[in-house]
Amino acid sequence: MKEPQSSLFDKQESSNPVDHNPAKFNRKPITPATAQQKIADYVRIIDTEKVSIYTAGGRFLAEDVQAPHPYPHFRRSGMDGYAVIASDIAQASSDHLIWLQVIDNIPCGQTPSVQLIQGTAARIMTGAMVPDEADTVVMLEMTETRQAEGQEWVGFKRSVEQGRNITPIGLEIEAGDILLTKGAQISAGEISVLATFGVHEVGVYRRPQVAIFSTGTELLSVEEPIEPGKIRNSNSYMLAEQVKAAGGEPHVLGAIMDDLELARTTMLHALSSYDIVISSGGVSVGDYDVMGDLVRSDEVEMLFNKISMRPGSVTTGAVKDGKLLFALSGNPGACFVGCELLVRPTIRQMMNSKQDYLPEWTATLGHDYHKINSFTRYVRGTIAVEEGKIVAYPASLDESSVMVTIKDSDCLIVIPPTSEVLPAGTTVSVLRLSR
Amino acid sequence: MKEPQSSLFDKQESSNPVDHNPAKFNRKPITPATAQQKIADYVRIIDTEKVSIYTAGGRFLAEDVQAPHPYPHFRRSGMDGYAVIASDIAQASSDHLIWLQVIDNIPCGQTPSVQLIQGTAARIMTGAMVPDEADTVVMLEMTETRQAEGQEWVGFKRSVEQGRNITPIGLEIEAGDILLTKGAQISAGEISVLATFGVHEVGVYRRPQVAIFSTGTELLSVEEPIEPGKIRNSNSYMLAEQVKAAGGEPHVLGAIMDDLELARTTMLHALSSYDIVISSGGVSVGDYDVMGDLVRSDEVEMLFNKISMRPGSVTTGAVKDGKLLFALSGNPGACFVGCELLVRPTIRQMMNSKQDYLPEWTATLGHDYHKINSFTRYVRGTIAVEEGKIVAYPASLDESSVMVTIKDSDCLIVIPPTSEVLPAGTTVSVLRLSR
Repeated sequence: MKEPQSSLFDKQESSNPVDHNPAKFNRKPITPATAQQKIADYVRIIDTEKVSIYTAGGRFLAEDVQAPHPYPHFRRSGMDGYAVIASDIAQASSDHLIWLQVIDNIPCGQTPSVQLIQGTAARIMTGAMVPDEADTVVMLEMTETRQAEGQEWVGFKRSVEQGRNITPIGLEIEAGDILLTKGAQISAGEISVLATFGVHEVGVYRRPQVAIFSTGTELLSVEEPIEPGKIRNSNSYMLAEQVKAAGGEPHVLGAIMDDLELARTTMLHALSSYDIVISSGGVSVGDYDVMGDLVRSDEVEMLFNKISMRPGSVTTGAVKDGKLLFALSGNPGACFVGCELLVRPTIRQMMNSKQDYLPEWTATLGHDYHKINSFTRYVRGTIAVEEGKIVAYPASLDESSVMVTIKDSDCLIVIPPTSEVLPAGTTVSVLRLSR
Repeated sequence: MKEPQSSLFDKQESSNPVDHNPAKFNRKPITPATAQQKIADYVRIIDTEKVSIYTAGGRFLAEDVQAPHPYPHFRRSGMDGYAVIASDIAQASSDHLIWLQVIDNIPCGQTPSVQLIQGTAARIMTGAMVPDEADTVVMLEMTETRQAEGQEWVGFKRSVEQGRNITPIGLEIEAGDILLTKGAQISAGEISVLATFGVHEVGVYRRPQVAIFSTGTELLSVEEPIEPGKIRNSNSYMLAEQVKAAGGEPHVLGAIMDDLELARTTMLHALSSYDIVISSGGVSVGDYDVMGDLVRSDEVEMLFNKISMRPGSVTTGAVKDGKLLFALSGNPGACFVGCELLVRPTIRQMMNSKQDYLPEWTATLGHDYHKINSFTRYVRGTIAVEEGKIVAYPASLDESSVMVTIKDSDCLIVIPPTSEVLPAGTTVSVLRLSR
């Protein structure tokens, strides 16, 4: 790959990495789907906590929420008008108005103040509680009023079907109905439901705590001035944002040392203190392969160290005491894709999300794609809608792409292994990114 | 509309709202686009602040970010292999290997330690700095090595085009290039760019502070037990989440009293303390129209009090000393739509976002739509992709819809004014919601 590696190369050990560590060249690739499944098999649902409705946005529900009462919980007027007994106005017509005495006025939020009897009506607002005795609400526009004998009267020009404009108790929701299901991510619509039913505190999954390391002690931090030959550690900050967007809580923990023993201690400590550990860099052929050495050791169980995908074929996954460790490529594009395809689903699976993987759509390739590869390629791109059809445009392929394609992409276009140019118009899958 | 109003109705004043306040019936509707434009004309760009790259995610850039140095800022090796002077190996072939003495080993992050001269080569890693004297990098797989005379030698089987595998300084980005533009929302890709260029602090727009009121003193708070005839104030919590998602900072401030003088004081105070004020309820015919009375007063300039749309036709907009006031419908569905169509763009325009309005796509209507209306209808729905085409399904139309359609929707389907059933297959616009 023609892309920079944010990783350390050790002078002594790697002067001939082919001889030094032949295992690196003999990695057995598995498919992206197999890698995802191997990880999913180890995911453990995280513990839960209660949060207030004020801070519940973005969290994942840890419980089904049942309706504590029906909705509406009273017979609700669907119109601004008059609550009546329908039989009272059965004979009404424009020639022969029927007049009822207005004996009550029921605004929203109040209960009827008197009992309705035959020959009477109650002025009622949309959303207000219909008196038990009334069976119909007539809309205001179909009535007229007059004062007579010191009383208010309402006249009806026609009869109205019994039951009209009254929403029965529980029509929308019965008590005990499941309102929201475990694993749902809470946004404005869910908040509205919770508030309507008085659920001011709700059980959600704790945000997975994600430790983020870079490899390579010689990467510059974002605060340091630039130096010849060096590059800044951009992946850790990018990963932190991706982890946040997925629903996790990132902890940027700096660089893993090129001393294997020290690296081992650091990683094992992180695995015991955090729910997930990610590193970027240090997994490629020729890198000082601290992550590789670590996952090949007896202390962690390696799940895979090669995936038949580009970018990021060297992505490595491992597990230790039920905690997942992801060693992502140091290449920014590969690091981004590895996090979206593997880490994001893990974070969301830990919170029982049913939308764990990036949502997949079918699209039409917008222009020819020229890169040929025996691995599946996840190409950063953008979705456009043209005449109601989804068209996916791969990001430009020149070398400037690395710097801009992550920020300018809203999808990953899945280009299957191919030995030929993939022409514009080909049907492809796209994975939607959540910007 | 057959939907509940979360608002107070005052017994005395509204016993006959038709007579009491004829102005309510004579509202002049403007189109949604006109309403949006009237608001946009009053939007003022908000002030800015500096934030660290750790907390910049989700914020909107208040400045163009220029590259402080080229990228790469050194001649970078695109391959793991050997840096050479191309003319040295011009005659190489598989029959006639050319051997160069390996005099350096350049890992990532380090500078070359000796000067390369004719007849020598430097082992170099992907991403490492190419010695000034070298003009080509040969990939590792095209070489072989041997030890001789106490020295390390590398053999080349063929010649390589000059310049191969070297990324020149500034190929991706020149110093001074615009990396990110003002108004861009910062997500993982932007963070990666900022970190790469050492921009650890960045100017962003301050989050607009949004005051949220409900109207109706008799609405139950989310913590209160349910009572006959009453409903809970769900809109304020829902609006708070919508405001957050748009990039603003919500402040739920409770109910506006049904005392006009008190309401006026409260609202004017809020308008002076916050950047935007929203209320829900109290704008419909028959409501105790505290918001209506307020916007008809001399103290604020009313922009509109009716929009030719459903739901939410009674939505009202006003301005006072350059601050925008939105009086949204109390109906939850109408309140949601009003916020997405009017408040969300305002928040984003204040932060210079170019993606201010909900993104609009063309889609095919998935099933017949039966509701007939002379106003444009924004119907909550879901997008599906079928054979690469976008199909939009309106949420179910029965009465249970109010409770579930907000949370289950990912778009608003724009149904133009129509006097007939809109058949499945019709081309419609959809506005994508950002869940």
